[in-house]
Amino acid sequence: MFYVAWSDGILSPTEMSIIHDKIRTYDFLTEDDRKYLISWTDPSRSPSQAVFAQWIREITRHGAELPEADRHGLAQLGWEIAVKMSDSGHKQKWMSEATRDSLLEMEQILGVEHDSSSALILNRFRTDDDNFQRDPSSQLDVKVLHDYLEGDGKVLRDQLRSLLSDPSFATEYRATKKEYRDWALDKCGELAQQGYGLLALPDYVGGQDNMTDYASVFELLAHYDGSLTIKFGVQFGLFALSILNLGTREQHEKYLNRAGTLALKGCFAMTETGHGSNVRGLETTATYDKSRDCFIVHTPRPQAGKEYIGNALHGEAAVVFAQLIVDGTSHGVHALYVDLVDSQGNDLPGIKREDCGYKMGLNGVDNGRLYFDHVSVARDQLLSRFGQVDNSGVYHSEIQSANKRFFIMLGTLVGGRICVASAGLAMAKNALHIATAYAHKRRQFGPADDEPETLLIDYPSHQMRLIPKIAEAYGIDFALKGLSERYMDDEEKSKKIESLAAGLKARATWFATSTIQECREACGGAGYIWENGITQLKADSDIFTTFEGDNTVLIQLVAKGLLSDFSKEFHDDGFRAVFRRLMKQASTSITEKNVVNVRKTDASHILDPVFHREALRFREKHLLHTVALRMRRYIKQRLSSTDAFLRCQNHMINLAHAYVDRVILKAYHKALETCPLEIQPTLRHCAEIYALDMISRHKDYYLEHGYMEGSKTKAIRRILRQRVQSLKGSSLSLVEAWGIPNSCLQSELV
Amino acid sequence: MFYVAWSDGILSPTEMSIIHDKIRTYDFLTEDDRKYLISWTDPSRSPSQAVFAQWIREITRHGAELPEADRHGLAQLGWEIAVKMSDSGHKQKWMSEATRDSLLEMEQILGVEHDSSSALILNRFRTDDDNFQRDPSSQLDVKVLHDYLEGDGKVLRDQLRSLLSDPSFATEYRATKKEYRDWALDKCGELAQQGYGLLALPDYVGGQDNMTDYASVFELLAHYDGSLTIKFGVQFGLFALSILNLGTREQHEKYLNRAGTLALKGCFAMTETGHGSNVRGLETTATYDKSRDCFIVHTPRPQAGKEYIGNALHGEAAVVFAQLIVDGTSHGVHALYVDLVDSQGNDLPGIKREDCGYKMGLNGVDNGRLYFDHVSVARDQLLSRFGQVDNSGVYHSEIQSANKRFFIMLGTLVGGRICVASAGLAMAKNALHIATAYAHKRRQFGPADDEPETLLIDYPSHQMRLIPKIAEAYGIDFALKGLSERYMDDEEKSKKIESLAAGLKARATWFATSTIQECREACGGAGYIWENGITQLKADSDIFTTFEGDNTVLIQLVAKGLLSDFSKEFHDDGFRAVFRRLMKQASTSITEKNVVNVRKTDASHILDPVFHREALRFREKHLLHTVALRMRRYIKQRLSSTDAFLRCQNHMINLAHAYVDRVILKAYHKALETCPLEIQPTLRHCAEIYALDMISRHKDYYLEHGYMEGSKTKAIRRILRQRVQSLKGSSLSLVEAWGIPNSCLQSELV
Repeated sequence: MFYVAWSDGILSPTEMSIIHDKIRTYDFLTEDDRKYLISWTDPSRSPSQAVFAQWIREITRHGAELPEADRHGLAQLGWEIAVKMSDSGHKQKWMSEATRDSLLEMEQILGVEHDSSSALILNRFRTDDDNFQRDPSSQLDVKVLHDYLEGDGKVLRDQLRSLLSDPSFATEYRATKKEYRDWALDKCGELAQQGYGLLALPDYVGGQDNMTDYASVFELLAHYDGSLTIKFGVQFGLFALSILNLGTREQHEKYLNRAGTLALKGCFAMTETGHGSNVRGLETTATYDKSRDCFIVHTPRPQAGKEYIGNALHGEAAVVFAQLIVDGTSHGVHALYVDLVDSQGNDLPGIKREDCGYKMGLNGVDNGRLYFDHVSVARDQLLSRFGQVDNSGVYHSEIQSANKRFFIMLGTLVGGRICVASAGLAMAKNALHIATAYAHKRRQFGPADDEPETLLIDYPSHQMRLIPKIAEAYGIDFALKGLSERYMDDEEKSKKIESLAAGLKARATWFATSTIQECREACGGAGYIWENGITQLKADSDIFTTFEGDNTVLIQLVAKGLLSDFSKEFHDDGFRAVFRRLMKQASTSITEKNVVNVRKTDASHILDPVFHREALRFREKHLLHTVALRMRRYIKQRLSSTDAFLRCQNHMINLAHAYVDRVILKAYHKALETCPLEIQPTLRHCAEIYALDMISRHKDYYLEHGYMEGSKTKAIRRILRQRVQSLKGSSLSLVEAWGIPNSCLQSELV
Repeated sequence: MFYVAWSDGILSPTEMSIIHDKIRTYDFLTEDDRKYLISWTDPSRSPSQAVFAQWIREITRHGAELPEADRHGLAQLGWEIAVKMSDSGHKQKWMSEATRDSLLEMEQILGVEHDSSSALILNRFRTDDDNFQRDPSSQLDVKVLHDYLEGDGKVLRDQLRSLLSDPSFATEYRATKKEYRDWALDKCGELAQQGYGLLALPDYVGGQDNMTDYASVFELLAHYDGSLTIKFGVQFGLFALSILNLGTREQHEKYLNRAGTLALKGCFAMTETGHGSNVRGLETTATYDKSRDCFIVHTPRPQAGKEYIGNALHGEAAVVFAQLIVDGTSHGVHALYVDLVDSQGNDLPGIKREDCGYKMGLNGVDNGRLYFDHVSVARDQLLSRFGQVDNSGVYHSEIQSANKRFFIMLGTLVGGRICVASAGLAMAKNALHIATAYAHKRRQFGPADDEPETLLIDYPSHQMRLIPKIAEAYGIDFALKGLSERYMDDEEKSKKIESLAAGLKARATWFATSTIQECREACGGAGYIWENGITQLKADSDIFTTFEGDNTVLIQLVAKGLLSDFSKEFHDDGFRAVFRRLMKQASTSITEKNVVNVRKTDASHILDPVFHREALRFREKHLLHTVALRMRRYIKQRLSSTDAFLRCQNHMINLAHAYVDRVILKAYHKALETCPLEIQPTLRHCAEIYALDMISRHKDYYLEHGYMEGSKTKAIRRILRQRVQSLKGSSLSLVEAWGIPNSCLQSELV
């Protein structure tokens, strides 16, 4: 039975407490037996694969020897094995009815009674995969699709799904921030107890060095509760990972195990009231005081207070970003580990906290403001991987360029951005699942009084509201997975990946905002009721477009990256080379824009992935060239680069969007190449919808630049609608393939 | 001093209680004096204009006789007058220092001390208009603009603004629905006490017969608190006005005064769980029981329960919409007045209520579900203006057509839709005011380290986020005002107005949703914090796109109206005539589409209101023709009309949007004709932005149909951006002209 309880790799808090209670009442157990059994329930010491394998071997070997009738239940099976294996002294005890009843009782409590549990044993692993049924409309094998989407992380993800489905994780409306915050802290502790807080940390502090798993946990939590997700992310992501990224091995060993187990609650104090996006301009100072060999961390004016800081009220320490001043010289933004409380848990002198109060959502996160009034911080608390002050009070850094140093200091944000993007997408998926399920069962208005009313999903306008968004969700998912892999592999954390993370973070979170809104409206009044699961998604995810980098700022970062690559070409190759290339590209455009192509309206062309790629590429490249030429003209006119940027701002934003559109399509096409064959037709169908939707949204651009004629854009609209309509049948399977447990959907509409 | 206290037409609850307390402590007053003075503070018996006039005459006459020095304060002035006028016995009392001090104290409490109060007396009315300053950037006279927007309703609106600025109306975050609902009910009572609940009701029940004023109150409340607005609207709008519209004079006299004073709390029970939009399909029955001469109101299945009903928990009675069945024959949907409680306030037998629980917003409204288990309702409680059952149990109606009867039964909704549209717009204005004020003071990033950072409003992307929306808000405002006037004047409540109300309701509420979202994001993290005033707007207004008619359903109603007008022409004039007209219009289009026009890019053409009108008209008419031709083709192919509609659904939705776009532009142009000359340039500037924004949003359509070439759409984009940029300076004045009191903005960002 322990095997079954552990067979999904997890013992939930509820299971655990039941087992503990029962073990204590069974008088056929010795005290040592009890300790031994209880030790099997400790998540931080979960049975190893080897122990599991041994259990399995024993069970199947002995089980197979028993007659069929004696192994129809787990308790029965265990009892028979025990009787068979025990020596005569023990046999007596095992034979007793009381022992047998206890086992039967435990079996029932754990919900593993009757034949299914034997079946589970014999099938080795309990599985939720039976939930996935083959889609009757398209013969899509939903389980294959689900497994493909899960990738390598399936075991961990299934474990966490089980945990979140445990009754102790059942959610309810928490009206006051006090109760919501207490709950979130408590649950964060339970996640830490299961070891989730240590996943991304190095093995030398007890961690698993597995960033991918950490990101999976963060994403799955987002399906469940936004506040818990952010609380988890602040503690184990921003706080712990900034120490990891910016601190020395010594500092890791000092802080990280406690941070990863929540023994030390911490915050990430970067943003200031006066400086959100412009981190470089933040005003908190950390001035080295040579006489006392420490830093003085100080908030020079109220607007320089640290703002919106998660964990600000529960936090016992903070990673504080401040202008580092040594001997009168500023070395730019650096991070320091700052204790907020003394050993009794009282605020240290000079620390002031303020509650940000209620917010639109995420009221389970204790966002607050932190002010420092000449707070002394020991020299060795400067996170010193990239810059140190030595014991003679001299600043050193291997990185000479202040600019590059700043970029590295902000490195933690890149991982955070990928996580926020995934979380936003996860929440959008919840909303899409709910709204799609509702559309497949809700009827309103009908052809005639005596006929059943029409399903919402049968209305073309309703299909257009939901289905292109499902297709887009798949595309963003593929793009984010691709980005994650590159990020994990990339030791250098290159500018390119930073730029891609910025673009996809902006896209995924804007997508979440618009999708959740659309789904709320698509569920009508029901969507507005808390118990139907959409309102909380909207409230919680709304800030995702702002935090971890304001989307409008990020998207400009993307455009600047594209432009600087472009002007680097100018620089490297000289004007003539670039001019030649421009001419060549222009002639390619002309080929693409040939009279036949701009008017082609046959479905085989409109659905051709090559056409999709080229159309998206055309928009991006064309915007890049035109904005580059404009910038060049302004610079020639001796405008400052700031003024030139300002004049091109909207143009640049469009460029960045075009780039992200294309990146997503590229990821889609890559997925089509690598996915199992049986799901390829459906994914191709989705990719077509995504591509045509993007082209349609920007058809003004194509028409304006003669890339298409009206007859073609009309054909695209028509074919897009047909493709959307023909995906109607599979739309429910597509949302179910995400595998969001009902406990996470938390909706009466599903 | 009473005159001053009353001079804005209102005594706020706080002022009242201070006055009462003081009056009780002044020993120079007799008991009769006290009663007399206190009677002057009763809002339901506010001093008449005649009394006011007499006060003014006395004060100015006696005041004028006094030397300048003796009338520098109100208390002084009053004291001098009293001394002068009283007989010798009283004079002694008046001369005492204690009396004089009491008056001075009262003067200070009421905030009317020092010279300003004398000035107020001599200037006749106290005014808040000093808040409006001339816009330095454009010389726009903001006060003139404000007064123009206020129209005739200024006095009432200023009164209500004062009330809402009273400290007793100060808002705070209310976490639990219990406390929020109690508060909303309480405040609804205070509004009723000031007479606002009776405004729209007829004089024979103590009302003012003034629907316009009622609508003004509703709109202004929306600036203040969504829950209170909806609570107010449910009680005094839906509940009371449905009795007014559907009941007989006898029924008015029986219920309406109590409804209008909140002595009787009621709900409007139309929507059912299974039937939201499709009201005709609702399932609750009201079956006439001849033997007992009453109706049996019954919920046949749980899905037929009344859903999302505001006031469902506080309500003592409900107007229930049910299928009326008399003698086995159904007469369609009718409304009945149904008591929910007995004289002790206990639920009557057969009544079941359920709480809808927490919602995304509006948690001060007690939305719930109502179920009826064979509830007996007296025959005279059928609201019988349009259909009655006589005492021999026979159904009569003057309106033969069941269809027309149904349309009339739903008439209350039309007024409700206009109100909801105004409320949505009001809430969008709050968000725009907050975000615009913030953009004019928040700086982020800068040209160089030593220069001040750039204001948000100086970023072109930020201008494009906010300024076109300000321009659109003005346009929707003008259109709604025009609609209101037509609605008030229109005794017949024509289909045309119903259609317009549906279209503008959908437009204004979608506008609110997108605008509040944009403003939240434009304020960054600050926008997410409750105390900054945007989050509540978002949460409360979100359902506006659904209730009082789901927007997607309403917008199709608009399209169907346009189509049926069109096919009526077919019907009346015969095919040949319509064909001729189509040909003529086609040739007009060709004129409009002449080679010169489609390429014209000069600013004088792009900014020409005639061009704007024609472009918007072209899109609407062209969509109408094409959808009509498609419908005709489908019908010829023997598709059912439902199937034909389904196939054209997205096309029809586009048509309806095009119609609404044009209606708003028309209202803008009308406003330009009638507004004071000094504000005309600014409004014209706004109208240009609105028109170019609409054209830009649909430039794909114009390009696709050859109405414009790419060179022209590019020019439009460029000129739109220029116009937006040049409105930057006035943008703050434009939001301030709405006159939203700070007490309603409730934002730390302003």
